[in-house]
Amino acid sequence: MSSRARQTISSLGESALLDRIRAGAQSGIGGRVLLGPGDDCAVVSFPKDRLLLATTDEMVEGTHFLDPLYHAAPLAAKLLRINLSDIAAMGSAKPLFILCSAALPATVPQSWMREFMKSLARECRLFSVPLAGGNLARSEKFHLSITVIGTAGKGRVITRSGGKPGDLIFALGALGTARAGFELYYGPSKRVQGGFRAPLVSAFWKPEPMLKQGAALSSKGLASAMLDNSDGLYKSVLFLAQASGCGADISFGPESCAPALKAYCAATRKDWRSYVLGGGEDYGLVFTVPPSREKKLRTAFPGAKLVGRLVSGRKVSTGGIRANPYEHF
Amino acid sequence: MSSRARQTISSLGESALLDRIRAGAQSGIGGRVLLGPGDDCAVVSFPKDRLLLATTDEMVEGTHFLDPLYHAAPLAAKLLRINLSDIAAMGSAKPLFILCSAALPATVPQSWMREFMKSLARECRLFSVPLAGGNLARSEKFHLSITVIGTAGKGRVITRSGGKPGDLIFALGALGTARAGFELYYGPSKRVQGGFRAPLVSAFWKPEPMLKQGAALSSKGLASAMLDNSDGLYKSVLFLAQASGCGADISFGPESCAPALKAYCAATRKDWRSYVLGGGEDYGLVFTVPPSREKKLRTAFPGAKLVGRLVSGRKVSTGGIRANPYEHF
Repeated sequence: MSSRARQTISSLGESALLDRIRAGAQSGIGGRVLLGPGDDCAVVSFPKDRLLLATTDEMVEGTHFLDPLYHAAPLAAKLLRINLSDIAAMGSAKPLFILCSAALPATVPQSWMREFMKSLARECRLFSVPLAGGNLARSEKFHLSITVIGTAGKGRVITRSGGKPGDLIFALGALGTARAGFELYYGPSKRVQGGFRAPLVSAFWKPEPMLKQGAALSSKGLASAMLDNSDGLYKSVLFLAQASGCGADISFGPESCAPALKAYCAATRKDWRSYVLGGGEDYGLVFTVPPSREKKLRTAFPGAKLVGRLVSGRKVSTGGIRANPYEHF
Repeated sequence: MSSRARQTISSLGESALLDRIRAGAQSGIGGRVLLGPGDDCAVVSFPKDRLLLATTDEMVEGTHFLDPLYHAAPLAAKLLRINLSDIAAMGSAKPLFILCSAALPATVPQSWMREFMKSLARECRLFSVPLAGGNLARSEKFHLSITVIGTAGKGRVITRSGGKPGDLIFALGALGTARAGFELYYGPSKRVQGGFRAPLVSAFWKPEPMLKQGAALSSKGLASAMLDNSDGLYKSVLFLAQASGCGADISFGPESCAPALKAYCAATRKDWRSYVLGGGEDYGLVFTVPPSREKKLRTAFPGAKLVGRLVSGRKVSTGGIRANPYEHF
């Protein structure tokens, strides 16, 4: 076996792996697919005057969660929310329906299934999106996935690639809190106590899909490029800058850090900036705004945090802060 | 823990489990979903004058296949084909695009990914359906899934529930051959040699989605109810009869058995009828035809095999043949 053939997908890294998949997918793509693999949603022209959006995200036992038997309800809620977050990141999209797939051990109690379905139905009502179908399979470990199909008007979606050098980068939603919640819930900070515990654990288990905010950023013409913040701010800015053919200077102040995260980092002697930058699973929105629309943006979204600026070139700098982002592979 | 709470999804059985999921899903379903969990595809009204169809199917290492590292290309082909088979089973549906998700160990070689993507792109071209997106996740075992989104004209889809007592039950495609192929490929008949090996193994790895046949059955108004034959003839007829509120008498002659399966059963001293009845993964079409259209059906599809008849009541009889169908849970 050549050394090239022995290279694993892990050694390649998720981002480069996705590039290869994009390249491979092109040969199968027809004219109907306006945006293929690589953005938050696929965008397909259907029917002539409308767009269909589609996204799918999976949660795997051992990778995204542990002890699934104790988490039927929160798993269903999070699974739906992280998928709706991808719809929110496209701007004016409206979810039409979802499919839910579960691969489960045969020993799972029926009560688990009841609780999972009850939670999923409750969340579906909350976000006004019906469950239309799915699949069940047997598996050693829990694998849970949802696919969301949505729709949008032509010319109304915001992709990752619309940014230009000089555009300001903003974030909506807390940064780095989900990772802190993960550490408090599953370790290594399982025994750390404090008032910060409840909000941080909730940030990990119950992210808020910003459907209304995404829609407003689109309808008011404020954002030039957007994605959801699923892999931490550094990676979000990196993906957005790469897709837009730009570099970026990431720069944020203490106002970008939620009080609970600041308190957690003080208690555990961690650098809050590395959480803001490399957190992961926050699922807010990261988007670019042309300088001419900054004032309008700040009026519409007083809570939006300025976290950097697109620049020419290809370099994404963090002002010396270590990102240490999470790599799935 | 009560004895009820201790009951597993395995003890409930896949069919009853799906019934419970259907019941749970209703509370989240909006008016847009015309057909929710339980048929081959979900059917959603969108836009007003059209239908969207959606289906997802998963293949899991240890449940559906072994040794994935040696099967990159055939896994991609089978994964697409079993999903397109669900689209075919709805009648006149046309696939619009697919999403593909893979949960893989970090140690998977990049060459595996290249081969998988190359095969998937080739199959996408073959069936004229573009790959529009998907997801990658890390996992201990291989979990591969595809979602297909399709479209159909209103009133043109054939569900499982349109059968009536007296309707004849027909099958298109070989029956029981995939299971024989599975036994030859993965065991217990791994060492059994004969001319039947190649066609049977091919039936297991490369099922033919009957998109053209499904479309013709719809456009010619021949089938009153239909599904794809993914769990063996007995279960297919059972699901169709249950959805149609009927019973069924299953009855078939030796002409329903492919020559290769007959030869395999002779070599291994198995009863070919139990393969035809409880095979699984054949992915042809099973459908009902009102007696008044039998002649037209036989003219249009000379290869269609008569395998039974819907009757009033709820009982599905097999004339004493043991089905022994495969239960995922």
